[in-house]
Amino acid sequence: MSFQLSPGAEGLRTRLFHIIFESDTPGAKAFDIALIIAILISVAVILLDSVDAYAERFGHIFFYLEWAFALIFSLELAVRIYCLERPTIYLKSFYGIVDVIAILPAWLVLLVPGAHGLVIVRILRVLRIFRILRLMEFIGEGRLLLDALKRSLRQILLFFSSILMVVTLFAALMYTIESPEAGFTSIPMSMYWAIVSMTTVGYGDIVPATSLGKAITMILMLMGYSIIAVPTGVFSAQVIRSIREDRYSEEACPGCGHDRHEKRARYCLRCGTWLDEDSEDPRKKDEHKNEKRP
Amino acid sequence: MSFQLSPGAEGLRTRLFHIIFESDTPGAKAFDIALIIAILISVAVILLDSVDAYAERFGHIFFYLEWAFALIFSLELAVRIYCLERPTIYLKSFYGIVDVIAILPAWLVLLVPGAHGLVIVRILRVLRIFRILRLMEFIGEGRLLLDALKRSLRQILLFFSSILMVVTLFAALMYTIESPEAGFTSIPMSMYWAIVSMTTVGYGDIVPATSLGKAITMILMLMGYSIIAVPTGVFSAQVIRSIREDRYSEEACPGCGHDRHEKRARYCLRCGTWLDEDSEDPRKKDEHKNEKRP
Amino acid sequence: MSFQLSPGAEGLRTRLFHIIFESDTPGAKAFDIALIIAILISVAVILLDSVDAYAERFGHIFFYLEWAFALIFSLELAVRIYCLERPTIYLKSFYGIVDVIAILPAWLVLLVPGAHGLVIVRILRVLRIFRILRLMEFIGEGRLLLDALKRSLRQILLFFSSILMVVTLFAALMYTIESPEAGFTSIPMSMYWAIVSMTTVGYGDIVPATSLGKAITMILMLMGYSIIAVPTGVFSAQVIRSIREDRYSEEACPGCGHDRHEKRARYCLRCGTWLDEDSEDPRKKDEHKNEKRP
Amino acid sequence: MSFQLSPGAEGLRTRLFHIIFESDTPGAKAFDIALIIAILISVAVILLDSVDAYAERFGHIFFYLEWAFALIFSLELAVRIYCLERPTIYLKSFYGIVDVIAILPAWLVLLVPGAHGLVIVRILRVLRIFRILRLMEFIGEGRLLLDALKRSLRQILLFFSSILMVVTLFAALMYTIESPEAGFTSIPMSMYWAIVSMTTVGYGDIVPATSLGKAITMILMLMGYSIIAVPTGVFSAQVIRSIREDRYSEEACPGCGHDRHEKRARYCLRCGTWLDEDSEDPRKKDEHKNEKRP
Repeated sequence: MSFQLSPGAEGLRTRLFHIIFESDTPGAKAFDIALIIAILISVAVILLDSVDAYAERFGHIFFYLEWAFALIFSLELAVRIYCLERPTIYLKSFYGIVDVIAILPAWLVLLVPGAHGLVIVRILRVLRIFRILRLMEFIGEGRLLLDALKRSLRQILLFFSSILMVVTLFAALMYTIESPEAGFTSIPMSMYWAIVSMTTVGYGDIVPATSLGKAITMILMLMGYSIIAVPTGVFSAQVIRSIREDRYSEEACPGCGHDRHEKRARYCLRCGTWLDEDSEDPRKKDEHKNEKRP
Repeated sequence: MSFQLSPGAEGLRTRLFHIIFESDTPGAKAFDIALIIAILISVAVILLDSVDAYAERFGHIFFYLEWAFALIFSLELAVRIYCLERPTIYLKSFYGIVDVIAILPAWLVLLVPGAHGLVIVRILRVLRIFRILRLMEFIGEGRLLLDALKRSLRQILLFFSSILMVVTLFAALMYTIESPEAGFTSIPMSMYWAIVSMTTVGYGDIVPATSLGKAITMILMLMGYSIIAVPTGVFSAQVIRSIREDRYSEEACPGCGHDRHEKRARYCLRCGTWLDEDSEDPRKKDEHKNEKRP
Repeated sequence: MSFQLSPGAEGLRTRLFHIIFESDTPGAKAFDIALIIAILISVAVILLDSVDAYAERFGHIFFYLEWAFALIFSLELAVRIYCLERPTIYLKSFYGIVDVIAILPAWLVLLVPGAHGLVIVRILRVLRIFRILRLMEFIGEGRLLLDALKRSLRQILLFFSSILMVVTLFAALMYTIESPEAGFTSIPMSMYWAIVSMTTVGYGDIVPATSLGKAITMILMLMGYSIIAVPTGVFSAQVIRSIREDRYSEEACPGCGHDRHEKRARYCLRCGTWLDEDSEDPRKKDEHKNEKRP
Repeated sequence: MSFQLSPGAEGLRTRLFHIIFESDTPGAKAFDIALIIAILISVAVILLDSVDAYAERFGHIFFYLEWAFALIFSLELAVRIYCLERPTIYLKSFYGIVDVIAILPAWLVLLVPGAHGLVIVRILRVLRIFRILRLMEFIGEGRLLLDALKRSLRQILLFFSSILMVVTLFAALMYTIESPEAGFTSIPMSMYWAIVSMTTVGYGDIVPATSLGKAITMILMLMGYSIIAVPTGVFSAQVIRSIREDRYSEEACPGCGHDRHEKRARYCLRCGTWLDEDSEDPRKKDEHKNEKRP
């Protein structure tokens, strides 16, 4: 992240900044772990609060815990804003928005008594669960995966377009063949069935009733079963490629500036310059010998 | 595609041709995007028109929209034909047929009342999206996938033949073991069950009732679960091969014979020899200069 | 196959042998295709004969067709035996047994009335398709797959052992937690449920009823969902390895007999001998020069 | 394992140690196979004993078999402890605990009547199969898999964290949209449904009832269907890497610096230099002989 402190910032702010926004000191690590645990517990409270049996028995405990988490997360956000130079930029960033979403609904639920607008309160209570997204801050490994995903993005889009076309065509076909009694009441409903079948989920709530419908379903299921090999193959290839590119050195050629050589390359593949600056080019040695001989 | 204009074609036709049949100018791209949106909306109209609730309320709007799209697509087809030298060849091509299919049923539905069953033909206009995908930069990705598919075609055929044999044998076995009450009324019905089980869809509409049937089902499910690794492995390997072969030139270094250079390499990565035999090594030019100077 | 003809065999037998047991002449290919069609139709007859509605209406046609196929396949087997030197070896081989199985039950069904249960044995004739696949050019593809399967056999065995252990443990756990009313009447029944869940088939005929059972099911499903990556990864790697080994030349080193060099290798990796017998070893050239110079 | 015998241990203990804790002699292999069979039968007894029909009829046989296995496994454990120098270390190791667990509950069930719930603990003896798999030649395969798993551990954790976040968010969403009548009674219950759907299991016990719920379900199913490509791709890449790194030595050729030789290579594949610096090149020996001869 690039939220920097002004050079003249006082010590407390600097220290807080390092603890909250970084993770390479013991203090910062302890803060991260405490925050993860707080988020997980607060999410668990929301989950359990939605179960009627628990809500009845432990409702007041959940209520106090929610107050506690609302206070903790609000305090944390306040400190975050306090130790930043440009808090507005932070609040408009993805993680800033997630941080606000993690707090606002809690206050709304706690302060607005739920007599009127029960639905909104209920939705707000559920919205609190978005604070789980804050965990994404702590995950660093994604770069290799995101890299491979980015490379296969076009192929994945192509894959999904094809899937949706197949689904639409099969849905229209089944809508014509099967009767509404079997559940194929409209093309969108048939599409729901086609996706349930093609992704091999197979709830069984809508099922073909006619022989012809069953025959077409078999084809659709075999397609769905085997077609998954396509994105898997593409993605495997891209991950392998991403790993392999770790084999490439990032040092630029002193001759032409080209910066993507295999680590074992000895000469620049674009201009032929000797890459290893610590030793001498064997070609030069040969030239020296030739010079000395006559 | 190879629908060319005669050299003496007037400017309008040439310009229309570039806009409609290509996609590398801003105008052509705008046309492609407008066409995709039109296709998607017209497909959405067909989908929603099949839902009784919407058909009752918005039926007349859908009717007018269908008229509008019939007119738009007809006009588009007319312009396509107008700006081509040999429209008959185009009309006989895959995309030509799809274009006609996208229009004809619309007119039939609008003019002949009650031609409801044409919904499958009308929805074929979703295939037109392929044409635009093809025109846009998805070609490269698609070609790589098709290339890998073509290479693994025989193995995929072998895979499906084996699947169908396994399905037939298990279906016959279950037909003998299980009673018709459990749903195994005939071998084709058992095959439907076997495919539902093997592809891991598992609707649950037909389910083994006897212990022996359940034991056999376990084997079938484990087979289906693990056998998918075969086409996935084959396809992964082929995609990797296709990607790799794109990167390496097959020409050997004239200096040391090393024969697996990346296509972008200009010097041999092992001995530093200039690889492009059609032009001169820039280093030599420098040497010539040095020779001339003194 | 190694069913050879005696040197003095008469022309007819030799010609029949080439047509029936090989597939590289037009006659042999026509025979293969005719045989595949005959097998497919005879299997289709068995399938349709098991459907009550068809059996009632077309029962007599199916009966005559079965007679016809019994005669055709018997004749084919007779010719096969006739044109072989050692038919007993052939009859004891896998394909010989399949050929006999494809005929015998047909005769039994036709001659002994009510031998309905033989449908499983009759349908085994679908296995004959393997013989033709084997004869045609699918061999190469199949060999690559079998090669990769053989290499990953141990890992696949390990995978299945682990799966079965997990299934047994989860089944015992669920048997203790869930009640028989929910379908968990015994550990084997729980194992059936565990395999249905772990392979992501999910019929839904047995489903956890308690909260704890549902929590454990979630873990099992996530395991089954992700663990499939293991055999897929192993198999992908093995296919890639098999393909890559196509990169290895099969010519032996003239120096030490070592026979697995990369095709681009110029020196034997075991004894350093120059491998390309058509050109001279550059090291020797250098030696010649050195010899000539003084 | 490192359970060593003291140098002065008597012959019997040494011999027993080799038979029981190793697997490279015929006696040790026979012991392993006998043990595997005993474990499998004893597990089968537990499985069948849970089926009411079998328990009623063969209950007394199962009872005597359980006694027999309790005795056999106790004897085996006694011998194991007897032939070890430091049995306490062994008893605290994973396999020691599993061995004790395999015996204790059997005695408890036999001596304390009605300790039926111990079936889960008793069935843990299936874990003992791992010990034998480990002893036999499956080690190599397992190590490769574990190696690849260890490398992709972080990415797998990332994958599961992402899955659980998606599941939580979709569950909260569906809890708000769908009614409790459709089965979405609480967020944890919705999470159960989300995992059933995302892992493509699809029991069908909880199914969306509203149109909006169905639309969201389609997105979730497509995500689950395609996202499995991620761990598969990552794991494939890691297996390929593990296999490859097994094949290549990391030492460079002293002649030309080429640094990716197969481990079995004795000469550099590019310049023919002798690679093993600890011994002399056999070709040089030949030259020495030639020099000495004249």
